[in-house]
Amino acid sequence: MKALVYHGPGTKAWEKIPDPTLLADTDAIVQVDTTTICGTDLHILKGDVPTITPGRVLGHEAVGTVTEVGTGVKTRQVGDRVLVSCVSACGTCRYCREASFGQCLGGGGWIHGNEIDGTQAELVRVPFADSSTYPVPSGVTDDELLMLADILPTAYEVGVLNGRIRPGDVVVVVGAGPIGLSAITSAQLFSPSLVVAIDMVASRLDAAKAFGADVVINNGQQDAVAAVKELTSGLGADVAIEAVGVPATFELAVDLVRPGGHVANIGVHGTSATLHLERIWDRNLTITTGLVDTSSTPTLLRLLTGRQVDASRFITHHFGFDEFDAAYDTFSRAGDTGALKVVLTR
Amino acid sequence: MKALVYHGPGTKAWEKIPDPTLLADTDAIVQVDTTTICGTDLHILKGDVPTITPGRVLGHEAVGTVTEVGTGVKTRQVGDRVLVSCVSACGTCRYCREASFGQCLGGGGWIHGNEIDGTQAELVRVPFADSSTYPVPSGVTDDELLMLADILPTAYEVGVLNGRIRPGDVVVVVGAGPIGLSAITSAQLFSPSLVVAIDMVASRLDAAKAFGADVVINNGQQDAVAAVKELTSGLGADVAIEAVGVPATFELAVDLVRPGGHVANIGVHGTSATLHLERIWDRNLTITTGLVDTSSTPTLLRLLTGRQVDASRFITHHFGFDEFDAAYDTFSRAGDTGALKVVLTR
Amino acid sequence: MKALVYHGPGTKAWEKIPDPTLLADTDAIVQVDTTTICGTDLHILKGDVPTITPGRVLGHEAVGTVTEVGTGVKTRQVGDRVLVSCVSACGTCRYCREASFGQCLGGGGWIHGNEIDGTQAELVRVPFADSSTYPVPSGVTDDELLMLADILPTAYEVGVLNGRIRPGDVVVVVGAGPIGLSAITSAQLFSPSLVVAIDMVASRLDAAKAFGADVVINNGQQDAVAAVKELTSGLGADVAIEAVGVPATFELAVDLVRPGGHVANIGVHGTSATLHLERIWDRNLTITTGLVDTSSTPTLLRLLTGRQVDASRFITHHFGFDEFDAAYDTFSRAGDTGALKVVLTR
Amino acid sequence: MKALVYHGPGTKAWEKIPDPTLLADTDAIVQVDTTTICGTDLHILKGDVPTITPGRVLGHEAVGTVTEVGTGVKTRQVGDRVLVSCVSACGTCRYCREASFGQCLGGGGWIHGNEIDGTQAELVRVPFADSSTYPVPSGVTDDELLMLADILPTAYEVGVLNGRIRPGDVVVVVGAGPIGLSAITSAQLFSPSLVVAIDMVASRLDAAKAFGADVVINNGQQDAVAAVKELTSGLGADVAIEAVGVPATFELAVDLVRPGGHVANIGVHGTSATLHLERIWDRNLTITTGLVDTSSTPTLLRLLTGRQVDASRFITHHFGFDEFDAAYDTFSRAGDTGALKVVLTR
Repeated sequence: MKALVYHGPGTKAWEKIPDPTLLADTDAIVQVDTTTICGTDLHILKGDVPTITPGRVLGHEAVGTVTEVGTGVKTRQVGDRVLVSCVSACGTCRYCREASFGQCLGGGGWIHGNEIDGTQAELVRVPFADSSTYPVPSGVTDDELLMLADILPTAYEVGVLNGRIRPGDVVVVVGAGPIGLSAITSAQLFSPSLVVAIDMVASRLDAAKAFGADVVINNGQQDAVAAVKELTSGLGADVAIEAVGVPATFELAVDLVRPGGHVANIGVHGTSATLHLERIWDRNLTITTGLVDTSSTPTLLRLLTGRQVDASRFITHHFGFDEFDAAYDTFSRAGDTGALKVVLTR
Repeated sequence: MKALVYHGPGTKAWEKIPDPTLLADTDAIVQVDTTTICGTDLHILKGDVPTITPGRVLGHEAVGTVTEVGTGVKTRQVGDRVLVSCVSACGTCRYCREASFGQCLGGGGWIHGNEIDGTQAELVRVPFADSSTYPVPSGVTDDELLMLADILPTAYEVGVLNGRIRPGDVVVVVGAGPIGLSAITSAQLFSPSLVVAIDMVASRLDAAKAFGADVVINNGQQDAVAAVKELTSGLGADVAIEAVGVPATFELAVDLVRPGGHVANIGVHGTSATLHLERIWDRNLTITTGLVDTSSTPTLLRLLTGRQVDASRFITHHFGFDEFDAAYDTFSRAGDTGALKVVLTR
Repeated sequence: MKALVYHGPGTKAWEKIPDPTLLADTDAIVQVDTTTICGTDLHILKGDVPTITPGRVLGHEAVGTVTEVGTGVKTRQVGDRVLVSCVSACGTCRYCREASFGQCLGGGGWIHGNEIDGTQAELVRVPFADSSTYPVPSGVTDDELLMLADILPTAYEVGVLNGRIRPGDVVVVVGAGPIGLSAITSAQLFSPSLVVAIDMVASRLDAAKAFGADVVINNGQQDAVAAVKELTSGLGADVAIEAVGVPATFELAVDLVRPGGHVANIGVHGTSATLHLERIWDRNLTITTGLVDTSSTPTLLRLLTGRQVDASRFITHHFGFDEFDAAYDTFSRAGDTGALKVVLTR
Repeated sequence: MKALVYHGPGTKAWEKIPDPTLLADTDAIVQVDTTTICGTDLHILKGDVPTITPGRVLGHEAVGTVTEVGTGVKTRQVGDRVLVSCVSACGTCRYCREASFGQCLGGGGWIHGNEIDGTQAELVRVPFADSSTYPVPSGVTDDELLMLADILPTAYEVGVLNGRIRPGDVVVVVGAGPIGLSAITSAQLFSPSLVVAIDMVASRLDAAKAFGADVVINNGQQDAVAAVKELTSGLGADVAIEAVGVPATFELAVDLVRPGGHVANIGVHGTSATLHLERIWDRNLTITTGLVDTSSTPTLLRLLTGRQVDASRFITHHFGFDEFDAAYDTFSRAGDTGALKVVLTR
C-alpha cells in the first residue's frame, strides 16, 4: 500500500510500504476512505514530538471500510464502514473502566500516527477494533463524520465539559483555529449567554463569527482582559477555553475568568507557562487539562445525525491521496489559505 | 478597649483604641473571649500584604460573646456566645446566593484584620452577624471551636472537597503545618486508602504521623515524586493538596498526581509558579485554588460535637491577651517551639 | 386597595381590603403592575389545599413597583421596578445557605397566596425583599418577565436540572400545559437530540410542536410507552419530566425511561401513585421531586434578556385588574379557550 | 462435576452434571474454591423469579482458581486465583462504556445463577473473564474477599453512593440483614455524624450496633419516623437506605428523610409500593434504585487490603460443598440461627 511516512523533522513522503497485518485477535484492518491532517501532525513534522521515530505513518483520523478482523473482534465485520477514532481503548484497564479511554494503560490511548502506524495511508491496523471504531450512521457524509475522529470530541470533552459550561454563561474561546471553532460549536450545546472568541488573525475571527461567536476580540489590537471585563460588569468570564497551546494564551485564559471560573486547556503545549498564583490563590479557580477520551463520541454521533451539530462547515479543502504534499502545504499555511480542515479522499 | 494594632511592617502593639461601634443595622459587637494567630497574620507583619494599612487591628478568628446587635440582626442577641468566622457574608449577592461566601461582592468575604478591624482585640465589630457567626454548641470548648474559625473549614473546603477525595484514594499533603495537618484530619473523613505527608522539617512530619498520616516523606532528604510513584505502582497520587504557599511545593504537588488526578492548592502565594503544561496538557489534571467559603461550617460543627473531628490536638500553646508579643514570637518560631496553633484567652 | 380574596372553595372576589403594611424591617411593599394566574390557584379554589384559609389574597407571581421599604432593605428602593418571585428567602437558614430557597426554614419559601397575602392585588407585602425580588432588566417587557416569577424557573430547576438533561438525550415531557411547555422550552437549553411531548389534548400537542417538541404523542390514542421505545431502539427515554400531577402521568413517566434514566416530577399531586418497584428496583432509576428554589432566576434573566428564551409565546390572553373573573374563567377552561398564561395588567 | 441445581420452586439438589466448557473465546472456566448464598437465592427457591428455569445452577458469588481460558482472554491465565463478581461486563456496549456494567447490553450484567449456570458448583464458566474477575490480592482471605462478590459493592454503590452520603450526614438504614449491615459498614467511609439502623428483629439490631450503628430503632415497638425526627430537630434524615425489599420499608424510608434528602433503594422488590406524592412533591427528594455495577470493586479491594473495611465479621457459618442443604437451611432461618453470611468451601 501507499502511506505518508515520516522521515524525521521536515521530511515526509507518500510512498509504498508493506500492508499492515493483524497483530492481535482484537485488531481490524481498515481501508482508509477519507482522512485529514491535524495540527498535531504539523508539530510532529517540526520535530516537536521526539517520541515519534522516522518510518512512522502519520495520521489519527479516518473513515473507512473494514477489510479484515481478528477472531476476537465481536461487533465489526468485513465490509463494515466505520469511523476510526483518534483514541483506542483496551476496555479492561483501570482507566477504560472509568471511561477515561485517552489514558488507557492497556495499549490504547492516542496511538495511531504516534506509537503505531497511522491513518494517512491506504490501510490502517486498528487495535481493539470493537471499542475504537464506530459504525457509520446513515444520513451523514464521510467528510462530516471525519470531524468526529478528533476535533469535535476533543473540543467538547476537554473544552466544554471540562469547563463545565452552563446555560447563561459567558464563555471565552482563546484561539479560533479548527479546535477553537469546534469549542465554539460545541459550547453552544449548553446555551451560553455570550460566546467570545479571541485571536490575532482577522480571518479566524471572521470564521469565529460565522461559527456563532457573539463577540470577537483581536488581542493584537485590543486589551482582551479589559474587553471581557467590560462585557461582564468587571467580573470576568465564567469559562475560558485555551485552544492554541502557547504560554501567552494560557496565561490570558487564566486572567480572563471571574472568581469561581473555569479554565479548560485544550492546546498542545511544548513549553511551560507561568501560573500567577499570587493573583489567583484566593479566586476559586478550576484549571483543567486533558487528552480526549472519546467517551462523548456516541453523543456527538446522535447530535450529528440529528443535525444539531454542523460538521461540514469545518471542511475548506479537498484533496486526493496522491496530493498529500499539497494538502499539508495548504493546511500549514492556514493564515494565507483560509484552511480549517483539509480532507483527503481515496 | 485594647487591641493588637498593626503599625507597618514588623511593628505591632497591644494598645488602647476606641471601642468599635455598630456601623450598619446588621452588625453586632462581640466581646472576644478567645482568639488565635494565623500564618496569614505573619505574612501581614512581614509587609507582604500591602493592602493592609497601618492602624488596622489584626486577626480573623474568634469565639466570643455578643454585647450589642443592630436592629437588623434577627438570629443573634446580646449574651449569645458565638464563633466568629473568618468569612463574612452579605447573604444576597450573586456569590452568596451560590454559597460562595468567600467571594462575597456585598461587603463580606475575608474582611476582619484585612479591610476592617479584626479579632485580636477585646471587642470586634462583626458585619452581617446573622450569616457570619455561629452559636457555640454545647459540649465543645472554646479552644476547639476556635479551630473552626479558619483552619478546619479552609483545609476541608479548599483542600479536601476541591480535591474531590474519595474512599480508597491515595492523598498527598504537601506541607505539615497547621493547615496541612487540618487537611490530613479532614481528608480522613473520606477514608482514603493512604495519606502521605511531605515536609522538610522532621518535627512536622512527626506531627503528621500523630495526626494520622500513613506515610511521611522528608523531601529535603528523599525524592518525593519517586517515593509516591513507588507507593502507587508508578502512577502517582489521586489527589495532592498544597499547604505551604511557595512555587516549589505547588510544582511538586502537580508532579505528584496521576493522570486524572486533582491538585488542590490551599497555600497563600506571594509569587508565581511554573506550570509545566508540556508535561501535563494531556494528563487530565484538575487544579483548583480557593479562599474558604465557610459553607462547610455547619457540617464541621456537627462533626466536632460528634467527636469525629478532634480539634483540640492543634492547640500547643496558651497565652493571655496581655501576652500577644510572646504568642506571636512562639508562633512565628514554630520550627523551634513546636507550635501548631497558639490560643489567646481573655 | 382591591385584591382577589379567597372565600372558601369555589368562591373568590375582587374586593376592597386594607392596604398591606410593613411588618418587618426587611419587607417591601410593591404596587402590582402585572400578575397572572397559576394552575395552583385553580387547585386552591377547588379546595384542594386545605391550609389556605378564607380571607387570603391569592397569587404568587408579579412584576411591580416598590412603594415602601423597611429599614433593613439594602438593595431595593422606592420606585424600583421589580420581579416578585414566587419564592421568598430569609437568606440565613440552613436551606437558604445551600441555595435551596424553596425549603427556607426562616419564614420564606412559597408563602405568597399561601401563608401570607399574595400578588393578585393592587399592593403586596414582600418579605425579605432583598433576596425575593429582582430588578427589572432593560429590554424585556413586564409580560415576558412575569414568566420568570414561577413557570420558567420551576420547569428549568425541577424538570430540566433535576432531570440532568445532557446534550444528545431523548427527553419526554408528559403534559403540555404551561409547565410542560416551559419544560420543553428550557430542555432545549441543553440540546437534547429529541424532545417528545405527551398529552391527550390535541391543541396542547399543537402547542408543544410550536414550542419545539420534535415528536408529539397523544396517549389517549396511542401507546406512549411503545412509541417511545420505538424511538429509542427499545431502551426508553433518558429523561422523563412529569408536568401534570396525577398518578397516571407519574406512573407513565416511570415506565418511559431507560435503565439509568431520570424521572423529574414537577406536577403538584393531590394523591399517591403506585411505584412499581418490582419492575424498577434493578434499573438504576433516579426519581426526583421538588419545589422551585428560584436559584436559577439570575441565569434565566440573562437568557431572557439575551433572547435565548422566548417567554412571550406563553401569553395568550390579557385582562385588566377588574376582569379577574373573566381571567380565571378563561384560564380554567384552557381546553376550550386555548389559554396558556393569562396576564392581568393594572 | 457436582453443582447445586434448581429444580423448580422449593426444590434443589447437589448433584452431578457435565462440566462447563468454554462457549466464547472471552470465557474462562474457574474452579470454585469458596462460594456463598445470597438472599436472592432464597427468592429464587421460593419461585419469585419466574425467569429462572429448572435445571439452572444457582449462585453468583465465588472465589476460585482459573482452570481454562479462551483465546480472547488477555489478562487472566490458568492457575490465577480470582474473585468472580456477581456482574459480568462485555466491556463495549453503551452501558459498559459508561461503567454501568450491571446494565450491560452485550451479554453481561447479573447472569450467573440467573441466565447461565452459577457459582454454587465445583466449576463455573465466567463470560468476559477479563472484565468480570479480579485477581486475589495478597493479605486477604478468600472468605473476606467473597464479601466483595456482591454484598459490599451492592451496598456501597446502590446504597451509599446513590444516597450521596456526605460527612456529617444523618443516615438511616432500614433493615439490618447482610445488605443493611454492608450499608452501615460502607456508609462509615463517608463519616456520617449519625448512623441509625431500623429493624424489627432484636438480634439484627444487636448486629447493627456491633457493626457501628450509633442508634438502633425497633420499628415493631417504636414509631421510627418520630424517633428519627427527634434525632434531627424535626427535619428528618439526610439519607435513608432501604435494605429489605418490601413496600412497608420502602415507604418508611421515604417518610424518614428531610426536605432535600435522598432515598436509596437496595432491596429486591417483588411487588409495588405506594409513593405518597401528595406529601413529597414539593420536598426536593431524590429516590434511586439500582443493580450493582461493580464499578467500585477496585476501590473496595484497596479498602479491604488496607483493613479499612472489615469483611470478615459478616461470616457467621462455614460449610463444606457437600453440606449445601444445611447451609441453605441455616441461612434461610437467619432469625433463629443468627446467620449473616454462610460460606461454603471446597
